[in-house]
Amino acid sequence: MSFEYGRNLRVTLFGQSHAAAIGCVIDGLPAGEKIDEEAIRAFMKRRASGGELATARAEADDALIISGLVNGRTCGSPVCAVIENRDVRSADYEAIADTPRPSHADYTAHVKYRGFNDKRGGGHFSGRMTAPLCFAGAVCMQVLGRLGVEVGSHIARIGGAQDSLFDPVDVSVPQLACLRVLPFPVLDAEAGEKMKREIAAAAAEKDSVGGVIECCVLGLPAGIGDPLFDGLENRIASAVFAIPAVKGIEFGAGFAAAGMRGSEHNDPFMMEDGRVKTATNFHGGILGGISSGMPVIFRAAFKPTPSIGLEQRTVRLSDESECPITVKGRHDPCVAARAFAPVEAAAAIAVLDLINC
Amino acid sequence: MSFEYGRNLRVTLFGQSHAAAIGCVIDGLPAGEKIDEEAIRAFMKRRASGGELATARAEADDALIISGLVNGRTCGSPVCAVIENRDVRSADYEAIADTPRPSHADYTAHVKYRGFNDKRGGGHFSGRMTAPLCFAGAVCMQVLGRLGVEVGSHIARIGGAQDSLFDPVDVSVPQLACLRVLPFPVLDAEAGEKMKREIAAAAAEKDSVGGVIECCVLGLPAGIGDPLFDGLENRIASAVFAIPAVKGIEFGAGFAAAGMRGSEHNDPFMMEDGRVKTATNFHGGILGGISSGMPVIFRAAFKPTPSIGLEQRTVRLSDESECPITVKGRHDPCVAARAFAPVEAAAAIAVLDLINC
Amino acid sequence: MSFEYGRNLRVTLFGQSHAAAIGCVIDGLPAGEKIDEEAIRAFMKRRASGGELATARAEADDALIISGLVNGRTCGSPVCAVIENRDVRSADYEAIADTPRPSHADYTAHVKYRGFNDKRGGGHFSGRMTAPLCFAGAVCMQVLGRLGVEVGSHIARIGGAQDSLFDPVDVSVPQLACLRVLPFPVLDAEAGEKMKREIAAAAAEKDSVGGVIECCVLGLPAGIGDPLFDGLENRIASAVFAIPAVKGIEFGAGFAAAGMRGSEHNDPFMMEDGRVKTATNFHGGILGGISSGMPVIFRAAFKPTPSIGLEQRTVRLSDESECPITVKGRHDPCVAARAFAPVEAAAAIAVLDLINC
Amino acid sequence: MSFEYGRNLRVTLFGQSHAAAIGCVIDGLPAGEKIDEEAIRAFMKRRASGGELATARAEADDALIISGLVNGRTCGSPVCAVIENRDVRSADYEAIADTPRPSHADYTAHVKYRGFNDKRGGGHFSGRMTAPLCFAGAVCMQVLGRLGVEVGSHIARIGGAQDSLFDPVDVSVPQLACLRVLPFPVLDAEAGEKMKREIAAAAAEKDSVGGVIECCVLGLPAGIGDPLFDGLENRIASAVFAIPAVKGIEFGAGFAAAGMRGSEHNDPFMMEDGRVKTATNFHGGILGGISSGMPVIFRAAFKPTPSIGLEQRTVRLSDESECPITVKGRHDPCVAARAFAPVEAAAAIAVLDLINC
Repeated sequence: MSFEYGRNLRVTLFGQSHAAAIGCVIDGLPAGEKIDEEAIRAFMKRRASGGELATARAEADDALIISGLVNGRTCGSPVCAVIENRDVRSADYEAIADTPRPSHADYTAHVKYRGFNDKRGGGHFSGRMTAPLCFAGAVCMQVLGRLGVEVGSHIARIGGAQDSLFDPVDVSVPQLACLRVLPFPVLDAEAGEKMKREIAAAAAEKDSVGGVIECCVLGLPAGIGDPLFDGLENRIASAVFAIPAVKGIEFGAGFAAAGMRGSEHNDPFMMEDGRVKTATNFHGGILGGISSGMPVIFRAAFKPTPSIGLEQRTVRLSDESECPITVKGRHDPCVAARAFAPVEAAAAIAVLDLINC
Repeated sequence: MSFEYGRNLRVTLFGQSHAAAIGCVIDGLPAGEKIDEEAIRAFMKRRASGGELATARAEADDALIISGLVNGRTCGSPVCAVIENRDVRSADYEAIADTPRPSHADYTAHVKYRGFNDKRGGGHFSGRMTAPLCFAGAVCMQVLGRLGVEVGSHIARIGGAQDSLFDPVDVSVPQLACLRVLPFPVLDAEAGEKMKREIAAAAAEKDSVGGVIECCVLGLPAGIGDPLFDGLENRIASAVFAIPAVKGIEFGAGFAAAGMRGSEHNDPFMMEDGRVKTATNFHGGILGGISSGMPVIFRAAFKPTPSIGLEQRTVRLSDESECPITVKGRHDPCVAARAFAPVEAAAAIAVLDLINC
Repeated sequence: MSFEYGRNLRVTLFGQSHAAAIGCVIDGLPAGEKIDEEAIRAFMKRRASGGELATARAEADDALIISGLVNGRTCGSPVCAVIENRDVRSADYEAIADTPRPSHADYTAHVKYRGFNDKRGGGHFSGRMTAPLCFAGAVCMQVLGRLGVEVGSHIARIGGAQDSLFDPVDVSVPQLACLRVLPFPVLDAEAGEKMKREIAAAAAEKDSVGGVIECCVLGLPAGIGDPLFDGLENRIASAVFAIPAVKGIEFGAGFAAAGMRGSEHNDPFMMEDGRVKTATNFHGGILGGISSGMPVIFRAAFKPTPSIGLEQRTVRLSDESECPITVKGRHDPCVAARAFAPVEAAAAIAVLDLINC
Repeated sequence: MSFEYGRNLRVTLFGQSHAAAIGCVIDGLPAGEKIDEEAIRAFMKRRASGGELATARAEADDALIISGLVNGRTCGSPVCAVIENRDVRSADYEAIADTPRPSHADYTAHVKYRGFNDKRGGGHFSGRMTAPLCFAGAVCMQVLGRLGVEVGSHIARIGGAQDSLFDPVDVSVPQLACLRVLPFPVLDAEAGEKMKREIAAAAAEKDSVGGVIECCVLGLPAGIGDPLFDGLENRIASAVFAIPAVKGIEFGAGFAAAGMRGSEHNDPFMMEDGRVKTATNFHGGILGGISSGMPVIFRAAFKPTPSIGLEQRTVRLSDESECPITVKGRHDPCVAARAFAPVEAAAAIAVLDLINC
């Protein structure tokens, strides 16, 4: 049941890039929650943003809520939202059915579905599936917001250009609010410019480039999450890897922790305003899978957009020959640069699912 | 239900570090599978290995299978294995109940369970929970083996000492077999010596050090895994983060992919012996969550063992004061160095669960 | 996650009686299955049938498939179908929000959702939710049909009028085919007339009447279903109780078995055409939760439609007083008489889910 | 995963009749719950009761709790209980492996598990699996008791002998308490004597007889349970059908409701002591799958014990011939008469699972 996520909150995605529509069903929301559709639209717009750098396919992505609300509030029945696929040009994709594009899911999907998968626009492997994911995330964020929990993120790296990282102890709600209005959210504007140059350079060469999104969850009280298989790490990773192109995730110090001594990495407990805190936050707000009350911080690594304009090598499945391929059409030189909204959405869904129990 | 993993194969862990026993129940194994208890014992021994570097707590970890087998074969009823806790000295842990150890789950568990959690030896947050995980993994590996799927790993990094990495295209079953008999499995013996020195140095200073395990799954046919939330990445991550101290996971090129161009990272398809392969394997054997038929490769980052002998700062929960803490008893200077078996076990469980459907 | 059913096939319902739409998402269908939309429409029409006896609300119930199909075949992505709610007159229901109708879910929903549930037309407790259930069932039946499995049913009882029952050994596919074209499917036409008179009599008195549907599944090979919690009985019951007004279910001899001796009830095994059969079929095709290869037979009891035109007693929640209530609008004097399609749908979903694993 | 039940409380059973042990793992219990082992023992003894009528296999069924408790309280880790199988005489069952006993799961299990299932004593289809079910139920009852929820039952019917039924409005906690100490719990002692005579008569003829257990849940507040697939009916049915020999379940008026008019069956709402009640309780405490605050009442039908001493007809699987079979050994003439404890256990587990969310 790979289109579904959650135990206590169930998000079901459906659709393909070129189906009549894509959308989602959200079951398990508490009844009586006010849903602000304007705020959802604003969040979904961020997914499609990217200014001059964005892919040419720029859809309005108006999600139509067809069930689950009465007078703007959840009524206990699942919220179903439908997003029409408008800007569909299936002809673009006809030629490639037999010659899988390198680093796409064309080949693995072909094997798994014995050729019956929807090849138009990547079918259900398209980045377009992040639109209903963002819808669901936007709904969850509103519920979380009322519980004092805020999710935010920035582009931490594009190719060789690195942004500053969140201060894991002092990252604040106002800081997240600032990031939320930036079309290209970075902490260090200069780093942002470098990143844009990396993207532009790749685009100019019909190439693409990868990146890293850093995300944090603030206001999560201590005690959320579970040991072993349902820890915050497991559950957030489970949701984040659903975003196409994610190839790694790390929490707190993450891979850097492998190079540290315990005496460095262990975060001393301290009291502040009558609450238990830690002086540093290498643990990324999670100990034993459970929130510590400190900011939850993680980073997700995105591979370079597989769709590039350069000639590549592939095979022709029909006759098992090798052949060149040049993928036509518009290319997004850097999905990572537009992945902050889906990453926030995935985190929001995962966290609300764990809180909801 | 955080003690359980799997959809089509369900592994349920139970126990605490100082309970009468720990163990697991494995539901969903095909009936008629031969289970080699000697091979299980050998694998579980690897979990407890580590030579002169290991923690003083060295238990036999004999798993007693109390159900699910008839004449050494699975019979359709769940396999339940019980491992007695013998070397239990609860006195060691009495003092720390009120003063949470930095970077342990003491504090978060205290909040979550309102003080009722088992504080002896870390309760169910103990690394000891990896013993039944390894039991379950060893069973899964036997089933996988008959399907031609092999799982293996090595210590890729300890502190500043780095092993070579698997050749992502050419890593082979014999290579994994060699690693499987090494008590300290590394690809480059010299790097192994450096790692041991890092561990010894940390131990000498009553400190600890982190590390990275690299794991691969060979022989997995193309087409295993699902899009979105049940991809190989999501499901393996879900299992691996159950191992205490894991703070990051990456597949294929992983975080390094963030710095790459698409033209570099995209793996060209080619034909070899009538099968579709890729010339390089930056995708780590997974595209769109689904296996490509190439080796599945991932790395898990371990934070330094939180339990160290140095004085640290913490709080006294009973009176909300700050205070020093020196954790007494034996310390394992590097859990990462002994984590290869649990990582393999988690991968084996995740992969068989996905194959099983 | 009470809007979802299934493990290996996941059916998610959404919508409320007077929302913009109701519908369903079906995840886990094998790719490449041909879906005959005409056959779906025909089956859904049966749900709405009932001739002169039917409720005045007679909607076309055209289900629009918005995802999951390519050229009329499943593509591995979930099938989502949306059914518009057209004949919606919310004014009918405004008055009753404060005075729960006896035997409806008005009161229990009010408590559960703290007043936020959709009160229009019974919200998500409406019999209208069986429309997407029937859609999902119709899809499953097509897949089952290709596996040689057929589902059929008849009205076994309405009030005091009783139809013959299926011959549990000899019920056949042609017999089911005949029932499928009857608007009022009974085995004994005379009994059918009596039933209609019972319904008409109840209707004339602004009253309603209950009934029983008998359903069978033919062609299910031996070995489907699981012991304990996932037996055919458990799983079919789980699905059938989702249909509003069902208050009982029995398999094979069912409650009558309580009055039988083992020597009577035990079905002797025999050989027929090289296959193991049983001479009688009191076990209803299920032993130990697993299919025996004999027809699976069960009966579901429906309470009388709660919505009647007579004056009844209820309470006014706002001031905790007792008061009379006369439910206005159109009443369906016998939901049971139109429940054969939802019962078949529930059975088809449950059986395909168990086969699918 | 058919050995598991529950979403928010997960009960996993394991073992076979003649394995070293049977037992269960209960995950999801709140931490800090006091567990009274003496009360568990008392409840489990009731499962084994039946006085002169009982099967000769009378085991102590001492459940050993090996994890999950600290100082007699739950600690957040699953409770695992192991029950040794002592009185095991496998020789009894050797002969029958090839000739499936009528109405047992021998044949269906043989097909499902391709002959690898444990044939000794019925393997995991044995009534013995109700021992760990009762353990889990006894634990749940203690937690429920603290929430003011009580579960009780009586033998409502054996063959032709019928007990009075619970007064669905006035059944009380003291009445359940009285039933709980009777070895043969009935409401009408005379009916009980008749039942015993039915059992004795069947036993004298080497035959067996079926029966009905009526169970009620008191003190459940309104608002528990969910619409559609997770209603109280669905969830209780799901648990109760796990008990071997159950072939039917009905709630409230159940099958009798099929013969009623709405004006009869609809339960008028009324106020009593400031609480909403219903004057009658044909709905069995459940409307729309959700508790109404009235007693939850259901009845489960048990087929006659399939194991009888008379000669029967079966087939020899090895050569596909028909042949007679006389099942040797001790026979329980009426499992129904001893099924009250498992039925209560199943109800308790189902109800706590729904409350727990």
